Amino acid sequence: MAHRAVGRALSLLRGRLRLPGPGHGQPRGHVRPGSSGAAVQRAPQAAAPEEPGEDAEVNTGKKTFTEVQTERLEQAERTVLIKCPPKLNENKLLQYLSSHGNIKSHFFFENRGIHALIEFSEKNSIASLQDAIGVPSAAEYHVVPFKSRLFTFMLKNPVSQAAEETPLHLSPQFHIPVKDLIQKLCHADSISSQMYILLNEYQLTDENIKLRYLVCSLVRDFAHAYFPDSTVKPFGSSVNTFGKLGCDVDMFLDFRDTQKHAAKMKKGPFEMEYQMKRLPSERLATQKILSVIGDCLDNFGPGCVSVQKILNARCPLVKFSHQPTGFQCDLSVSNSIAIKSSELLYIYGCLDSRVRALVFSVRCWARVHGLTNSIPGTWITNFSLTMMVMFFLQRRSPPIIPTLDQLKELADQKDKLVIGGYDCSFVSDLSKIKRTNNTETLDVLLGDFFEYYGNFDFRRNSINLRKGKEVNKPESSPLYIWNPFEQDLNISKNVNQPQLEKFVAMARESAWILRKEEKAQQMINKEPWGLAALLIPFGKSNSNKMKNRMKGIGSETIRNLLDSLKLNNPNSLQKAVGK
Amino acid sequence: MAHRAVGRALSLLRGRLRLPGPGHGQPRGHVRPGSSGAAVQRAPQAAAPEEPGEDAEVNTGKKTFTEVQTERLEQAERTVLIKCPPKLNENKLLQYLSSHGNIKSHFFFENRGIHALIEFSEKNSIASLQDAIGVPSAAEYHVVPFKSRLFTFMLKNPVSQAAEETPLHLSPQFHIPVKDLIQKLCHADSISSQMYILLNEYQLTDENIKLRYLVCSLVRDFAHAYFPDSTVKPFGSSVNTFGKLGCDVDMFLDFRDTQKHAAKMKKGPFEMEYQMKRLPSERLATQKILSVIGDCLDNFGPGCVSVQKILNARCPLVKFSHQPTGFQCDLSVSNSIAIKSSELLYIYGCLDSRVRALVFSVRCWARVHGLTNSIPGTWITNFSLTMMVMFFLQRRSPPIIPTLDQLKELADQKDKLVIGGYDCSFVSDLSKIKRTNNTETLDVLLGDFFEYYGNFDFRRNSINLRKGKEVNKPESSPLYIWNPFEQDLNISKNVNQPQLEKFVAMARESAWILRKEEKAQQMINKEPWGLAALLIPFGKSNSNKMKNRMKGIGSETIRNLLDSLKLNNPNSLQKAVGK
Repeated sequence: MAHRAVGRALSLLRGRLRLPGPGHGQPRGHVRPGSSGAAVQRAPQAAAPEEPGEDAEVNTGKKTFTEVQTERLEQAERTVLIKCPPKLNENKLLQYLSSHGNIKSHFFFENRGIHALIEFSEKNSIASLQDAIGVPSAAEYHVVPFKSRLFTFMLKNPVSQAAEETPLHLSPQFHIPVKDLIQKLCHADSISSQMYILLNEYQLTDENIKLRYLVCSLVRDFAHAYFPDSTVKPFGSSVNTFGKLGCDVDMFLDFRDTQKHAAKMKKGPFEMEYQMKRLPSERLATQKILSVIGDCLDNFGPGCVSVQKILNARCPLVKFSHQPTGFQCDLSVSNSIAIKSSELLYIYGCLDSRVRALVFSVRCWARVHGLTNSIPGTWITNFSLTMMVMFFLQRRSPPIIPTLDQLKELADQKDKLVIGGYDCSFVSDLSKIKRTNNTETLDVLLGDFFEYYGNFDFRRNSINLRKGKEVNKPESSPLYIWNPFEQDLNISKNVNQPQLEKFVAMARESAWILRKEEKAQQMINKEPWGLAALLIPFGKSNSNKMKNRMKGIGSETIRNLLDSLKLNNPNSLQKAVGK
Repeated sequence: MAHRAVGRALSLLRGRLRLPGPGHGQPRGHVRPGSSGAAVQRAPQAAAPEEPGEDAEVNTGKKTFTEVQTERLEQAERTVLIKCPPKLNENKLLQYLSSHGNIKSHFFFENRGIHALIEFSEKNSIASLQDAIGVPSAAEYHVVPFKSRLFTFMLKNPVSQAAEETPLHLSPQFHIPVKDLIQKLCHADSISSQMYILLNEYQLTDENIKLRYLVCSLVRDFAHAYFPDSTVKPFGSSVNTFGKLGCDVDMFLDFRDTQKHAAKMKKGPFEMEYQMKRLPSERLATQKILSVIGDCLDNFGPGCVSVQKILNARCPLVKFSHQPTGFQCDLSVSNSIAIKSSELLYIYGCLDSRVRALVFSVRCWARVHGLTNSIPGTWITNFSLTMMVMFFLQRRSPPIIPTLDQLKELADQKDKLVIGGYDCSFVSDLSKIKRTNNTETLDVLLGDFFEYYGNFDFRRNSINLRKGKEVNKPESSPLYIWNPFEQDLNISKNVNQPQLEKFVAMARESAWILRKEEKAQQMINKEPWGLAALLIPFGKSNSNKMKNRMKGIGSETIRNLLDSLKLNNPNSLQKAVGK
């Protein structure tokens, strides 16, 4: 029955979202939220004069990670951000701007007022626009005359123009609250379709991705001023297909292109090179550059606030809040291994539509139950949790995704990469990867995921994505997940025994709930069921919903559950987690 | 006799230096040192492929201050600086560079190694060159990859190329020591020619001026990166025709052009403006901008060392040392009154050749006798001293230079300028100013200068260049010189009573020496005479030269002189300086 339900949900979604079927083998990227179906009550995308299908092509996942990044970065350079008055005639704004060039796409969003992102077809339209734009008069305050691509659009006579307003379609930049999500999930007809609904609500929208690349491009303008060969690229959740709406923008400053010119002019008996500041270490250079760019953002960057330099960290960093886009940003300097990790996840996310649906569901579940946290600590990180899902999918029979060693075997010459002595080569061309024959539904996969980790021998075994095998732990960390590239590092070294025990307890409990649930009965009772049932904190027995849900669960289970939540008195978990 | 001697000296200098005669009325700018005559033993200017007469046109002084600045700044943007190996074939370097464009001028100088300044005819030659130049390989050290216009030229195989070296002509960037100057002066045949020799040895050379504009242009590249409408302009001694070799480069960051665009795009019913950082005061904006540019210079600027931010001063400032040019630089933000002061001095310096000769002689004299100092204190500043010379020249009969009120009367519409409530208007077009009929020689003027200030009633009177009249002191500062633009300020407020007394004593002593001297006898005895005699510290009785010179001076004078130098026991000066 579950299988049939998934089929229905998917056929519903596929029509609107261009979703491939599970095991269908078609890689996919990000779903266009503006075009989402009935289950997703979002404003339809504002009519933009873009070529049909263009966006789809960017997002099909047929492109390599690098191709997508290059395209998005180029797109961002043709883009401006305009703060608009609360009431506005959209067509008038577009007409006004189009005197500077063809507008390829645009959308509106709400963030401390209404903003419009405008993508021109040609980069030089921006120069034309910038040339025509005024500097704010310094009557009441003084301005730092740094000319960015952030503008303010004003009506000269707001009253007379109010009549011409048309309602604006606003593209959402944040996901809905969990309680609203749970409501939505209850109306689905299978766990699988619940998981796709969650994915669709939480994943980054095309618009949000454009904003992320724009903020990188705006920071690049600062770096570019002094280092014309440098670029600023997003990495991590913004680009690895696993980012959720509202997540931070991790970006890095890349000087790699600078090196291309090194020692170029060597014709004849002479050499000529730039006089440059010399420093005893690359780290010191990184710190100095980040420090100055941090100051530039702080002092010149419109809307750049709360700039924090964290230069003595292992990976020197500038944190800042970008008010116009609403993003919290972390700027570091090129970290090749972090980028390869992003690319690896991108590949896994594109290979099979079930991958991202399962990851988003598990991460949402983990967050609800306090297994992950946005502040650093002994919690399992989102990255570790994602790797655990990947490993689980490698362990299916037949496997849903290949091991890293298999991806490495498919690498061609241009994919070869050794960083700091570690071989980080793997195939970049998605079309070279054979898709799985596994046709398991997400209903099955979700339940089995919880069962798998509920029974995993964490005491003895570690998780190795390179081999796709449980291997003996090389050391005694409670949770050991091999860093896929730096093979002697454990990416979950931070996780302590109580946190791991909590995870195992929650996984067991969740597996048990999914097994026991009588969906038909719960739907009739309008009780949360399936994934929705897993997204209610288990300990909250005072809530009505919880009480209702608890009716179907034996008292022994509740006792076990509560025991496991106390963490100080772990019981049945001892053996499994190796205490 | 003196008059004839001046005539001879001038006709000698005029042939090589294109000097106009005194009172001739031809304005002149900077003398080209490379082409200086026999009295000036400098290396002849390296043969540069420049158009003949081009430089002369820049320097004739026919141009307004603004025209000269604009031309020089544009020239600086077409200029690069190249560090060369100690031995070099000049033609090979030029041939090598000329593949990127026509070289309009060039020269070599010594400053922590050999450097070449290369001026291209076209700005885009620099882009072509930059594109071909390599980044230093980061084998032993790491570089900050900021690409400036400072390059290093290297021979791949120094040994095999050593045979092809040709001796380089090095343009001097520092004036000769006073003791060498005194030697030279002794060979002149009049005080007037001595003063022109001193001027020629001390004044900025065309090459040095090019370097000064280049360093401004290099700083501009930093500011330009973020503020494309900004410029960095030199002011003060680098441009007022009174700078001596080795003096600091005062420069300011000018945003004035930025304001032109203010509120431009106002067509139709809409307005669009840049989003910019807003600050409560212009001072705060200035501080933030200077702070970031200071950091950029410090962290990215090759050869920028000892960067000091002095942001809480009345006029916020960044001091730095620019190693490639050897300049000590002070960067501030646009100070309109300082610029008008530079322009006023430029006009006075261009009006009559005697003006600069007298100022340079008096300043050299003052420095030798400890009346001025490079560190701030109670000493008379060079600016005050220059103003005292100007005032003296206004007081001649007929006056040699006009008063500021007369220059103001000649101002046309475009010269009108009010800054902070002060009328700073004066004529910019030199051709509108009627030249003097006064034909006094510098021999006369120098002696009379010392007599004039030796007898000046400092107790009661102040120096007012606007009116060209001694006026009653508005307050009790020992020395009161009216700020020419901010009329309620005294530019010599820092000078205390002992310093003023010392100045008057030295002036009297010098006037006395010039009156008493028997030139013919001294020349036969090979003793310092005329200006040379004034450039030997009066107190140094242990030196042989001094002993010789002292022979001709009565013992009473020496006692008076020594008394006045003690400063604690002022005697005959009391009445004059108002103690």
